[in-house]
Amino acid sequence: MVGNTFGTLLRLTTFGESHGESIGGVLDGVPPNIPIDITLIQNALDRRKPGQNRYVTARTEDDIIQIQSGLFEGKTLGTPICFIIKNTNQQSNDYDELKTYFRPGHGDYTYHAKYGHRDHRGGGRASARETAARVAAGAFAHIILQHTLKRPILIRSCVKQLGDHNAITNTQAIDWDFVIKNTEENPIGCPCPIALPRWIQKLNQLKEDGLSAGATLYFEAHGLPAGLGEPVFDKLDADIAKAMMGINAVKAIAMGDTFDVCAAQTGYDEMTLNEDNTIAFTSNQAGGTLAGISTGQPITGLVAFKPTSSTKTVRQGLTNNGQPISIPINGRHDPCVALRARPIIEAMLALTVCDHFLRWRGQCGNS
Amino acid sequence: MVGNTFGTLLRLTTFGESHGESIGGVLDGVPPNIPIDITLIQNALDRRKPGQNRYVTARTEDDIIQIQSGLFEGKTLGTPICFIIKNTNQQSNDYDELKTYFRPGHGDYTYHAKYGHRDHRGGGRASARETAARVAAGAFAHIILQHTLKRPILIRSCVKQLGDHNAITNTQAIDWDFVIKNTEENPIGCPCPIALPRWIQKLNQLKEDGLSAGATLYFEAHGLPAGLGEPVFDKLDADIAKAMMGINAVKAIAMGDTFDVCAAQTGYDEMTLNEDNTIAFTSNQAGGTLAGISTGQPITGLVAFKPTSSTKTVRQGLTNNGQPISIPINGRHDPCVALRARPIIEAMLALTVCDHFLRWRGQCGNS
Amino acid sequence: MVGNTFGTLLRLTTFGESHGESIGGVLDGVPPNIPIDITLIQNALDRRKPGQNRYVTARTEDDIIQIQSGLFEGKTLGTPICFIIKNTNQQSNDYDELKTYFRPGHGDYTYHAKYGHRDHRGGGRASARETAARVAAGAFAHIILQHTLKRPILIRSCVKQLGDHNAITNTQAIDWDFVIKNTEENPIGCPCPIALPRWIQKLNQLKEDGLSAGATLYFEAHGLPAGLGEPVFDKLDADIAKAMMGINAVKAIAMGDTFDVCAAQTGYDEMTLNEDNTIAFTSNQAGGTLAGISTGQPITGLVAFKPTSSTKTVRQGLTNNGQPISIPINGRHDPCVALRARPIIEAMLALTVCDHFLRWRGQCGNS
Amino acid sequence: MVGNTFGTLLRLTTFGESHGESIGGVLDGVPPNIPIDITLIQNALDRRKPGQNRYVTARTEDDIIQIQSGLFEGKTLGTPICFIIKNTNQQSNDYDELKTYFRPGHGDYTYHAKYGHRDHRGGGRASARETAARVAAGAFAHIILQHTLKRPILIRSCVKQLGDHNAITNTQAIDWDFVIKNTEENPIGCPCPIALPRWIQKLNQLKEDGLSAGATLYFEAHGLPAGLGEPVFDKLDADIAKAMMGINAVKAIAMGDTFDVCAAQTGYDEMTLNEDNTIAFTSNQAGGTLAGISTGQPITGLVAFKPTSSTKTVRQGLTNNGQPISIPINGRHDPCVALRARPIIEAMLALTVCDHFLRWRGQCGNS
Repeated sequence: MVGNTFGTLLRLTTFGESHGESIGGVLDGVPPNIPIDITLIQNALDRRKPGQNRYVTARTEDDIIQIQSGLFEGKTLGTPICFIIKNTNQQSNDYDELKTYFRPGHGDYTYHAKYGHRDHRGGGRASARETAARVAAGAFAHIILQHTLKRPILIRSCVKQLGDHNAITNTQAIDWDFVIKNTEENPIGCPCPIALPRWIQKLNQLKEDGLSAGATLYFEAHGLPAGLGEPVFDKLDADIAKAMMGINAVKAIAMGDTFDVCAAQTGYDEMTLNEDNTIAFTSNQAGGTLAGISTGQPITGLVAFKPTSSTKTVRQGLTNNGQPISIPINGRHDPCVALRARPIIEAMLALTVCDHFLRWRGQCGNS
Repeated sequence: MVGNTFGTLLRLTTFGESHGESIGGVLDGVPPNIPIDITLIQNALDRRKPGQNRYVTARTEDDIIQIQSGLFEGKTLGTPICFIIKNTNQQSNDYDELKTYFRPGHGDYTYHAKYGHRDHRGGGRASARETAARVAAGAFAHIILQHTLKRPILIRSCVKQLGDHNAITNTQAIDWDFVIKNTEENPIGCPCPIALPRWIQKLNQLKEDGLSAGATLYFEAHGLPAGLGEPVFDKLDADIAKAMMGINAVKAIAMGDTFDVCAAQTGYDEMTLNEDNTIAFTSNQAGGTLAGISTGQPITGLVAFKPTSSTKTVRQGLTNNGQPISIPINGRHDPCVALRARPIIEAMLALTVCDHFLRWRGQCGNS
Repeated sequence: MVGNTFGTLLRLTTFGESHGESIGGVLDGVPPNIPIDITLIQNALDRRKPGQNRYVTARTEDDIIQIQSGLFEGKTLGTPICFIIKNTNQQSNDYDELKTYFRPGHGDYTYHAKYGHRDHRGGGRASARETAARVAAGAFAHIILQHTLKRPILIRSCVKQLGDHNAITNTQAIDWDFVIKNTEENPIGCPCPIALPRWIQKLNQLKEDGLSAGATLYFEAHGLPAGLGEPVFDKLDADIAKAMMGINAVKAIAMGDTFDVCAAQTGYDEMTLNEDNTIAFTSNQAGGTLAGISTGQPITGLVAFKPTSSTKTVRQGLTNNGQPISIPINGRHDPCVALRARPIIEAMLALTVCDHFLRWRGQCGNS
Repeated sequence: MVGNTFGTLLRLTTFGESHGESIGGVLDGVPPNIPIDITLIQNALDRRKPGQNRYVTARTEDDIIQIQSGLFEGKTLGTPICFIIKNTNQQSNDYDELKTYFRPGHGDYTYHAKYGHRDHRGGGRASARETAARVAAGAFAHIILQHTLKRPILIRSCVKQLGDHNAITNTQAIDWDFVIKNTEENPIGCPCPIALPRWIQKLNQLKEDGLSAGATLYFEAHGLPAGLGEPVFDKLDADIAKAMMGINAVKAIAMGDTFDVCAAQTGYDEMTLNEDNTIAFTSNQAGGTLAGISTGQPITGLVAFKPTSSTKTVRQGLTNNGQPISIPINGRHDPCVALRARPIIEAMLALTVCDHFLRWRGQCGNS
């Protein structure tokens, strides 16, 4: 019930400050007897890791997962899986200045208002570094989901819009091979080879100018059954909205492929049959749920990130004592923090859906 | 933890199907000794009630709240407040046909997929009628919040966009007197006298054509302290996102006053001082939170509703047995369901904020 | 998470003060599609109801259950079942005096200390009347358990000790037919025909003398599978302990058939095989769990109730203003409140076990 | 909600198998800005640690706490405190045999029944080693409680009965100095210098005979305010009962100082005034609560442990394949596991009470 736990039956509790001893998580409620290939978890962490290209922050951490519990002989025990990731590249003297003032756009002031005491080093608990724990847990959730549902579940995402440039108008046009396979050429999850050079040029310009941009990401989950989600407050899309809005810098979330749902004809996904007489829909404007419960169509949605708050441009903040101060940021920062967010979005989606699957099994499943 | 409960310390559990005996809720965790004027709760219900104007459904229910528990001598006991609202205008034979097929855009099919058994009458549990319980509980939450914070908390909302027509470009331009005081002239929460005739014309056209439109609503809460919200998963905005996406027909939510946050310069709300040396911000693009915790600025956001699914236009659904069927809707329906949603949005906001206030007091308060 | 809710996946929230409008509950997380015979629920309530014999309080309420939601066409919908029981025999002027002082042994003072405001009429929320809601919910849980496990689950209890008289030394000697079938002759759940006259004599003497006695009840649940319960905090017996200690006037709980477990050889339930090669144990001193998880043996335990606090004997209390006062109790009271507790114990056991079954199915079940 | 988390606002999640990488916990909901002296936490762990005297198991672990997060500059941050304790003395080949059979009295069979996969080494998750995490967390809770209540809170316990020998008849007669200060002479928490030699003789005899005994422990918490606890399911004593019954080998729990509450006159704690006109009671048979809410008197109770299941005596178990097997236990075992339980009981009491204090502050506190 406290704020660092996510989920109902599959529950992730994360811990850790950016420059403390370690960050990590405890994943409880894991079904037993599921084979876990730890390299899959490590691979997910490697995808999220900073320092992979020149458009994201230069801080390099190895981010090696260290399993403390819950696995035995390569399989889940059904007991809590605790994992830690050591903070090895702390350089916390970089951050000594941060102790004395509140940066605009960051949690410095609100943490101070709430707690009266904060770990100022690199954002402390508010650092995006905390999301590494989510990525590891999401990789577990993905494995659990596929094992218990006995089928592949495809969860993927791309960047749809960078700043004010929307790379595609129709999500059908996303070049998923380009997004997923060409990570060397396309390290930023751009959905379209034509847009990529424009985006890279934009990022270079932002770096040069000491500015930043936001971005919109699109996500999809394929292969889920109909019937997941709860009718009222814990609608599947309500829990997805919470999951996404809980990611650092996210400020908007929509189900389906547009934020402009009020003009879209989303009420009108009509029903039909596939050739094999299974149930189908003529469109999926609702993003895969009706009345909060999955339809069996892909779960789809958009997540919008605000621009990185810290840039080289001087901005007005306040000191701890309430004196105005012009803040020059000299640290390591991304022109667009959203470009590293794809694994985080996919992880939160996997956690949400897997939790709802277990909830469904508890209430409605066969024994 | 089950899907019909909202909140952590202030917890609302709702119950009831549209055409069952009653709908209602249990509000637990209420602070004791708070004077409650029941007419304020009833007024909130009256605002939500159908049948108030020709643009919303003609079903008329009295929606009289009946308190079962938790109040004594006009004050809260600290024990659960249970209230019920009888379903008096049931006319459920109107709905006999619905037993045999799945309407597109409704929960008929997904309820069937999840539960294998459903109350088909008027949407059953998926009916917007369930939101009456939220409105009553939100009115309690508003009173609790003001009493415990010892100050007025202004929570208000308006319709910003109807279908593809955006009445205002800047939320500073909202004519709140027109929205709140002129409810006879402006029963649909339009923010601007100039836009109103155009909207009314549009609604008439939609009714005539048997079509429907979505809408975007804007909300604000003024008077809240800095420091509310949890840093990680239970960010104040994450819980608001869940609260809003859990409302029937909502498909998108944004903090601040635009969905286009990735292009907006939301990273850059700079800090300054008021004349009395209290902390201030030069803008509020973030919608009143930083790192998930309130800044003391107004909490603001947008919620987008999809168009009403049921209209007079025939649409393709399926029978329970999986046969295609053309569905003519003859029941009572709104051309834009979002026009009745203002009290619901305000209620969910009050519940979310009040819960976070109590959570703050538990963890961080003075005794 | 607030104190009026019990369970994790099958969740009961109760509400109501003794002399308010009604008491009742919301049971959420109910599996769908389960046929419910409401007369079974009403029968359970009738068993608990006061006024059935001269040894229990004379207050007579009809205690008719009124289902508000969650059932349709005789089956569970999977949505919350809300039920209310009207308070019809309120006579609250009987209780006017209670407004001014704190009775010893009751919650008057502690409610005042916690809430600063209380419904003094008949104990308000602390009244044993609240347990009617548990009994109704437990009857649902019993039906759910049998339906989902597809086998009969026998849950039963008796009074083992009244005051200082222990009717039986060995729970094998309980005459269950006498307990369950001979309710006219044996309205107090005595386990042994020989002890009954002695107990009746004792109760008459207590009434005459204006005194009261406690009692110990023994419970059993047969037919449950091995594997229910969680290893650490939510051990099956830990949740049973909480369930039982949460019943009014309960002050001790033991698993197995003795409180003297430290001298008993409970560590030594050895394992063997039945003739059909299924697993068996040579004894069940542990009360049906090992390491908090069910063994498949019967779940057994003891619950001890303190004597009724209110009797005709004058006792020393305090006024609301902190002045000593001698309190004569003139209301309607039982010489032994525990004699009405059998349905409540059985209900709490059914709720606990059913919840753990659904939890097991969520985490460990087949889909 | 999953079984490895305890508490509502102050929440402890534990993890770890006896012979895995580490055991530990995450304590969330901690109030901010509280100075923490880590040596106090380590001291608590040292008290629980095996190998301190010849009557407890010879396994020696250093049990050094390693804080991962949540503390900064010697104070709590308000963020989750994660701590790990490495498993250094694993000797897991001692346990190879355990892989093939189910020991009677242990969780081997029930874990198998639930999970189908278990870490057999030293009991895995069911090992008493898990309780080290509770002890560390309880030490934090004790500090938090004293800091937020701004007064000393005395929490202490002793062994009252060993096997069938009850050292004292009246808890007023406990020689607390002997229990707490003379730990060299009295390493087993005996409440009475006269009883000690007899107990030591008994333990020696048990070791020699390859047998074991249970024990009953008595606990007290002094200094708590009236008003803690919830009226219905989450009564303070109900949560204490759950906390205690969740400790390995505990099989009974009573509030007050006797299990024989049904014969005791516990209903009759009368009220009076202290000389300074503060509220007092003439006795405390109820163990410090009325109607589930604290009275301001000491919280007192008894906890009974079953005898250690593993001794040198051969007992009948089953192999994984369901074949009978005579099990000789050659490992390291205590004749009375309860003798090490005092820090665990005190820790669970501190956690329960501190959680209820924060809950009280959330619902009923001043801001």
